[in-house]
Amino acid sequence: MTECIFCKIIKKEIQTTKIYEDERTFAFLDISPVNYGHALVIPKVHSENLLEMKEKDLTAVMKTVQKIANAIMKGLKADGFNLGMNNYPAAGQLVMHSHIHVMPRLKNDGLRLNWPNKKYANGMDKDVAETIIKHL
Amino acid sequence: MTECIFCKIIKKEIQTTKIYEDERTFAFLDISPVNYGHALVIPKVHSENLLEMKEKDLTAVMKTVQKIANAIMKGLKADGFNLGMNNYPAAGQLVMHSHIHVMPRLKNDGLRLNWPNKKYANGMDKDVAETIIKHL
Repeated sequence: MTECIFCKIIKKEIQTTKIYEDERTFAFLDISPVNYGHALVIPKVHSENLLEMKEKDLTAVMKTVQKIANAIMKGLKADGFNLGMNNYPAAGQLVMHSHIHVMPRLKNDGLRLNWPNKKYANGMDKDVAETIIKHL
Repeated sequence: MTECIFCKIIKKEIQTTKIYEDERTFAFLDISPVNYGHALVIPKVHSENLLEMKEKDLTAVMKTVQKIANAIMKGLKADGFNLGMNNYPAAGQLVMHSHIHVMPRLKNDGLRLNWPNKKYANGMDKDVAETIIKHL
């Protein structure tokens, strides 16, 4: 945990371009942005991913996300923004400290989510839903 | 607003595969999943996007997102999951009622975010950060 790069960023042991900080959250610019202003919002209390986050931290993080998104829209004159959160390496998570991406979007910036959509075979959606419901 | 498709889903005027419902939130399967179990979590109170969401609704939505993500990991034996939220048409938002995607991921499912990363020219990140900070 002392090796966590985001914990080090919070402790200012690693320099970053900070845009916001409060009691529970920290926000800074992604060094490899998909568009300028691409920000990461993280909880100060270490957690690996969404499932480990305590409610107070999650609430605080989302409040900060809202604040940053609003400032990005106004300040950078963005036309929209995406939120993204990758949980576990299979989902592309690279740093094992919970973080939410706030990504400014511009009309016709050419970014597209090229993930092919599947269709459920007849009745299959009910089976999948039942399985999820059983584990709620 | 009476025409909003997600408001109609909440009122059961349009049928969907529901997986969860509580006082403030509703969750159902996306009919065009990127992987089976791809769910949408929405607030019952209509808002167009993240910036319009009241704190109570956002907190409730994130709590439901956490619950669904946990059930997807356990029930569907997923290896990870992505959260995604598109805000405004420029970001790919198609239905103008706030919704968060919970997308199960499997090792080597081939889904990749092919958004090229940019680099900040020298000092440019500080300028961008200052602009955002001014609008917080």
